[in-house]
Parts: sequence; C-alpha cells; structure tokens
Amino acid sequence: MNYDNFPSKLLENAVAEFSKLPGIGRKTALRLVLHLLNQNKDEVRKFGNTIIQLRDEVKHCKSCFNISDTDICDICANPKRDKSTICVVESIRDVMSIERTQQYNGIYHVLGGIISPMDGIGPSDLRIQPLIEKAEHEDLTEIILALSTTMEGDTTNFYLYKKLKPHEVPVTTIARGISIGDELEYTDEITLGRSLLNRMPFDKSL
Amino acid sequence: MNYDNFPSKLLENAVAEFSKLPGIGRKTALRLVLHLLNQNKDEVRKFGNTIIQLRDEVKHCKSCFNISDTDICDICANPKRDKSTICVVESIRDVMSIERTQQYNGIYHVLGGIISPMDGIGPSDLRIQPLIEKAEHEDLTEIILALSTTMEGDTTNFYLYKKLKPHEVPVTTIARGISIGDELEYTDEITLGRSLLNRMPFDKSL
Repeated sequence: MNYDNFPSKLLENAVAEFSKLPGIGRKTALRLVLHLLNQNKDEVRKFGNTIIQLRDEVKHCKSCFNISDTDICDICANPKRDKSTICVVESIRDVMSIERTQQYNGIYHVLGGIISPMDGIGPSDLRIQPLIEKAEHEDLTEIILALSTTMEGDTTNFYLYKKLKPHEVPVTTIARGISIGDELEYTDEITLGRSLLNRMPFDKSL
Repeated sequence: MNYDNFPSKLLENAVAEFSKLPGIGRKTALRLVLHLLNQNKDEVRKFGNTIIQLRDEVKHCKSCFNISDTDICDICANPKRDKSTICVVESIRDVMSIERTQQYNGIYHVLGGIISPMDGIGPSDLRIQPLIEKAEHEDLTEIILALSTTMEGDTTNFYLYKKLKPHEVPVTTIARGISIGDELEYTDEITLGRSLLNRMPFDKSL
C-alpha cells in the first residue's frame, strides 16, 4: 500500500490533479476532492467541463493580449478609452486590479510575465516585440510601466525602457511610496528613502 | 461592468466554479484558473475529466462504506484484518489517518458525518442503521468509536453508545489526553483534567 493509503485509484488520481495547482498540498487536495464527491454528479460535471471549456475556447485580445471572449477585448473596443496611452502589466490579474481603481482610462498591454532568469523566463518569452511595434507605428502619448516592485519587475522595467527609448514615447512608471494607511515606523527603509526622494508638491498629492 | 471586471465570461464561470470549493475565495480561485490557463489543453482536459470520472465511477465499499474501486474495499477484503473489531469513523479521511498510524488491524465503519443539528444532520442522515445491524448479526468483540472530540462528536458517540448497548458488544472510545510533544502549561484545562482522570499504569503507557 502506498504512503497515503488511498483506498481508490480514482481518488488518488483526482487528488494528484488538484495537488498540481499552486498552493494546494496533498491534504487540501484531498479535502477538495472529498467535497466534490459529496456534490451531485451534474454539479461535478459542470465543474470539470467549465474548466475544460475555458482552456479550449479562451481567446486573447489581438491588440493588448488580455483574456477576451472576442478577438478584441472590451477595453480595446471601447471608443471612450484613450488609445494613445498604454499601461504595461504582467498579467490579466493586474488589468483587473487597475480596472477596479477606476483611475485609468487608457488601454493595456499584457506582457504575460516578467523577465526572471531564475525561472528561465527571458525577454523572448514575453510579448515585448508587439509593444515595441506599437511604440514604433502608433501615435502614443505615454507608456506607463506598471510592473511589480521586485527585482524581476525592475529588471523588466529597465529592459523595456531601453527598448522603448529610441521611439521617443514618454515612458513613465507607477509611483512607489508608502502605502495608504501605513505607518512610517513600520515601512522598510528602501521604500521610505524612495518616497522621500520622489516627494511631490503637497497640493498635487491630494 | 461587474464588480470584479472579468474580461471574459468563460473566465468568470471558471472562477465561480472554483469559488464553490471550501476554503477557496475569489482571489485564490482566479489564481488557480489563470494557472490552468497557462497549462496545455491536454493537461487541463485531464484535470477536468479525472474529477468527472471520479464522481461518476466512484464506489463505496458495501461493507464499511469506505471509498473503493471495487464492491468490497481492500481493507475489508484483506484476510489478515480482524473482522470482529470495527472502528467507527466520520469520513474516509479518518480511515486514511488511522491506516497511516499502522496501529490498527481491524476493519472500519464510515458513518459519512456526525450528528450536527446546526448543519441539519440527524442520525437518519448517517450510516448508523447498518452499524446497529452489524452489532446485532455479527460476532463482534469490540466497536471502537473514533470520532472528533468536539461537541458534535461527543453527541454522536453518546447516541451510538445508547443504540449499541442492547447488543452487548464492548464499545470503547479512543483515548483523549495530552498530544505527544505538548507542554502541560499550554494544554487547556478540560483536556488536562480528562487526562488526569483517565491516568493509566505507567508500564502500560509505553
């Protein structure tokens, strides 16, 4: 008998599939599978088929590479959005986060990751070339880099900046500083130092 | 646009399905779905189909109600296991936990839950009647109640004890006491009190 004493091969397979998901260990996987076993067959079939259908039928917007049910996503197709401002993000999760702020009226460009030599992700694995082409051929007023404030994010920012510079598009990056609600005492010194260096006129900060 | 700004209905459906799982919120669901989107289609199809297959084809052992690929599970079918000792547990997860201890050589009876009026689970929702019948018709030497040490577990223990008593089978319950590795200082007083009351000869405790 194996280490986990699975009473059924079917059960073991299902647990193995769930365990492949990020952040789901064997114990959680077993709990989820046993939960599904207690649902009726139609529910479980719907669960499985919804996921298969998503993977089979999902499209990416041909312009910004956001996930979309149509060839061009709702954001790119919206005539009210400013097409001359492009916000560069890592993933569609970031698009959703920025959309929730309701502070941005331009369009996006989803890179599909960030440069991370540790994980074997280089510039050619990302959608950088189409961005350069947009900078070259379209009449852009601004490219906003909105990547994670990690070493990988900074590396990618720097790489993109170098590639975009020859095309004379203003390239900006989102502000780094103290999070709203944070106390200075508990802020790390790098963030605090950066927020001092990048201080701004009080009447513009409201 | 809805609160979560899903760029795709397919994506939204898949996230909704994952969110139904216990302990999985919208954010985690989105992370899992985006992970699956990055896998190849065959992998995702395998994921979905494995779960559907499990639910469609899973069997329960006709004797102990453990999950099984066959009519009688491996444990009940094992000639080396003592069929006169039945360990009553809540779910197949508990069977797996006890099997891992390698301390038990009897068979099991899986109740399928515990009595929990708060969740609307009464005795008739559990596999109690088949257990009573075993006590009545089979030649048993012991029934071990191995339920959670919660109020619901205790209620179920008490209910089972009352139902089993007329059949003159010795009914025991697993020991409650200080966990191995615990310090007395941090043990709650009820557990500590019980473990004092139920103290045992030192030479038997090894």
